[in-house]
Amino acid sequence: MSKPSLPRGTRDFGPEVVSKRNYILGTIRGVFELYGFQPLETPAMENLETLMGKYGEEGDKLIFKILNNGLDEPSKQEKARADFEKVLDGKLAKDLTEKALRYDLTIPFARYVAMNYGQLTFPFRRYQIQPVWRADKPQKGRYREFTQCDVDVVGSNSLLNEVELAVIYHSVMTRLGLYGYELRVNSRKILSALAEVCGGAEKLTDITIAIDKIDKIGIDRVKVELTARGLVSSQVDAIETFLSIKGANPEKIALASDLIGHTEAGRKGLDELRFLLDHLAPSGATTAPGAIAATGAGPNIVVDFTLARGLNYYTGMIFEVKAPSTVQIGSIGGGGRYDDLTGLFDVPGVPGVGVSFGVDRIYDVIEALRLFPETVHAGTQVLFFHLGDQESRASFALMQQLRGTGIRCEIYHEAAKFDKQFRYAEKKSIPYAVILGTQELTQGTCIVKDLAKGEQRTISQEALVRYGF
Amino acid sequence: MSKPSLPRGTRDFGPEVVSKRNYILGTIRGVFELYGFQPLETPAMENLETLMGKYGEEGDKLIFKILNNGLDEPSKQEKARADFEKVLDGKLAKDLTEKALRYDLTIPFARYVAMNYGQLTFPFRRYQIQPVWRADKPQKGRYREFTQCDVDVVGSNSLLNEVELAVIYHSVMTRLGLYGYELRVNSRKILSALAEVCGGAEKLTDITIAIDKIDKIGIDRVKVELTARGLVSSQVDAIETFLSIKGANPEKIALASDLIGHTEAGRKGLDELRFLLDHLAPSGATTAPGAIAATGAGPNIVVDFTLARGLNYYTGMIFEVKAPSTVQIGSIGGGGRYDDLTGLFDVPGVPGVGVSFGVDRIYDVIEALRLFPETVHAGTQVLFFHLGDQESRASFALMQQLRGTGIRCEIYHEAAKFDKQFRYAEKKSIPYAVILGTQELTQGTCIVKDLAKGEQRTISQEALVRYGF
Repeated sequence: MSKPSLPRGTRDFGPEVVSKRNYILGTIRGVFELYGFQPLETPAMENLETLMGKYGEEGDKLIFKILNNGLDEPSKQEKARADFEKVLDGKLAKDLTEKALRYDLTIPFARYVAMNYGQLTFPFRRYQIQPVWRADKPQKGRYREFTQCDVDVVGSNSLLNEVELAVIYHSVMTRLGLYGYELRVNSRKILSALAEVCGGAEKLTDITIAIDKIDKIGIDRVKVELTARGLVSSQVDAIETFLSIKGANPEKIALASDLIGHTEAGRKGLDELRFLLDHLAPSGATTAPGAIAATGAGPNIVVDFTLARGLNYYTGMIFEVKAPSTVQIGSIGGGGRYDDLTGLFDVPGVPGVGVSFGVDRIYDVIEALRLFPETVHAGTQVLFFHLGDQESRASFALMQQLRGTGIRCEIYHEAAKFDKQFRYAEKKSIPYAVILGTQELTQGTCIVKDLAKGEQRTISQEALVRYGF
Repeated sequence: MSKPSLPRGTRDFGPEVVSKRNYILGTIRGVFELYGFQPLETPAMENLETLMGKYGEEGDKLIFKILNNGLDEPSKQEKARADFEKVLDGKLAKDLTEKALRYDLTIPFARYVAMNYGQLTFPFRRYQIQPVWRADKPQKGRYREFTQCDVDVVGSNSLLNEVELAVIYHSVMTRLGLYGYELRVNSRKILSALAEVCGGAEKLTDITIAIDKIDKIGIDRVKVELTARGLVSSQVDAIETFLSIKGANPEKIALASDLIGHTEAGRKGLDELRFLLDHLAPSGATTAPGAIAATGAGPNIVVDFTLARGLNYYTGMIFEVKAPSTVQIGSIGGGGRYDDLTGLFDVPGVPGVGVSFGVDRIYDVIEALRLFPETVHAGTQVLFFHLGDQESRASFALMQQLRGTGIRCEIYHEAAKFDKQFRYAEKKSIPYAVILGTQELTQGTCIVKDLAKGEQRTISQEALVRYGF
């Protein structure tokens, strides 16, 4: 056959990349579990009707649909033919395709909660780290298979959950060395209040859509868009005033309160931000010894009234994480509170709050800042040279001792020339070689060579296990 | 919409199952890395032409094919229509489907090695733990999405690899507590020799197919099948004699040598088994202190001349792992040596050897034998009761201290009645509760309750971090 290749937008992850990714995912998983979250895994394939209609018309087109099997059976062909034009129409066509690859982790989670509602203990705290698939046009940093990493509490209206999620972000970011991250917060209630004050509640969607673009197009063009969407100039000016609020978090909240604090939504939204900040300030997480890694400071929270989080299902506080400003990469995480996770599946009344981590982008940031620890890569630590059959048997026994103490080692597979074996160690960045030849075999010794320093020592075989690799 | 459901043959894994699976996978991964194997991950989707034709005609039918996206674009519809009849014919139809879900980890690995041949260091030692998808008819213990777990060395003919893979099996099985496992070994060379002696080399496939069924149908029906496949009775008798060889491993090899040792293939195959046994006996792994976990004995190797491993690509030694005999579940792993991994992708001359672990079955065995450690489930260790806003703030600070020392904790989300909070702890099997009410807040104390024993102690808040949960 022709030279093999990968489907567009997909990637192989070789050893080093897998190790680095596992370092990130392991760090995140460890923090999630410290906060009492438990893992959930759902299948890659969902029923197509579980997914269709949940991501908007554009989203539906990006779902990877799976062709039914057994279409070559005569009994199935008539129906399949009848369904074919529906497929071309982008419609449900069960006789041709009834399964699809999951598009995110939220809908499968909602489906799981709806299916298992009676068995779950609420509030249900789950995390989920799995790949998702989208038929987006591949481009730099955008793949058709990528990993999502979500953490949610459902069945609770308590703001303590928001507090904990903020601390989780802080804990993960600082454990990964990303001290300069910022956690931007806002509330959909505040945006509602803004709409109420500037144009009426029915303008909420228009205002949200316009504000959501501010990072990309700037305030001037946001104003143009607001005008185009029917807001009068006094309203547009009021929105500009609101979006221009600056200062430390308490000042921002005070200034916002002057503008929207008289509405119920505004008061609630601002109170929630105060609750969050208050819990994370002096008496909260930040002063507890040992609680927050390394920085000594609390979560780097920035109240940001320009944060909108697109047109999704959020109803309360919303979050977005920015990478340290030395890396130009935009958001590396986000989330928020929603009112009704499982309503789509006929199980109403399950509110929740959740955030996610953009694993691919976090990877790029850590790489750009050279923050991956050297120990991340769990490669071979010691290469035993192969110098003949008797020698390799003795080496094998010594390897088993080392492995028993957790040292990763291997023996070169055949009695090749020395420099070939050295070259193998070098290519694989193996730091130590153990050389055990005829002489060492007789004397019960072995030579340990530090390949970086080029130094070597002859020690007794018994001492090898205590060498301290 | 109607009640949501899962596609047939797929499963959700809730918290407890994920934890148990991760315990197994983590154990396996840890052992692989001790032996110098490194992780590879390939995308779920492969080009359809990478997969088609690699698994036989029946296999091709079980591949999940992905419908091309954008079929609703007019420019694509004409070609899609033209391709539709090909799909119904089970033929390649690139204008309708050009990607598919991987069916195993071997072909993606071969594709990876072929694509990256120039960059890899050989021998290349990789492991891969990922889900695969097959449109098999679902039944007990057989799923349409399941995890494969493969470890291979490619680019080496050395038998030391076989030795190491045998030790890897032993190390994994004993770490998982499955001391009674058996590692059955045979060699395709021995089967070739048997064919040579009984009917001629051209009967190898017939003999292999028949022998492969011996576990299911017994020797008598194997003999019937051999006769049906054209062997004369003296040949069938010779095969029966061979398959009936009993005794300790060295005896079996000696007896087999009498029957097939005069052929070159027979001599080679038996020599290889001797090499394996020899390396794992006294001077090898088994006596190295600390090398082999707990049992004190070496790999439980059983030479088994009835082992055939179906009709696959093996050319040398073959392996199969049987669960401890107290569980009736058949093989929980297997593998062998092959001559040519990447020939299908025009990169000839890459021999290798690999084995795999049947994760789902291993799970069932460990569950049946109740061997999952109690500590596997990384659930919440301490539930802080919520008794009011001031109290919860103090609790929050204490939780952060505990989390800083690695204790998994959470606070009940709202100030509910005591028994509701107790019930939550009970349902989630949380072993400890910390109660911090008005009185404790004033006194700087807290109550720690051991929920299993029903005992409680009042201690100072400072002492909590040293409690020893």
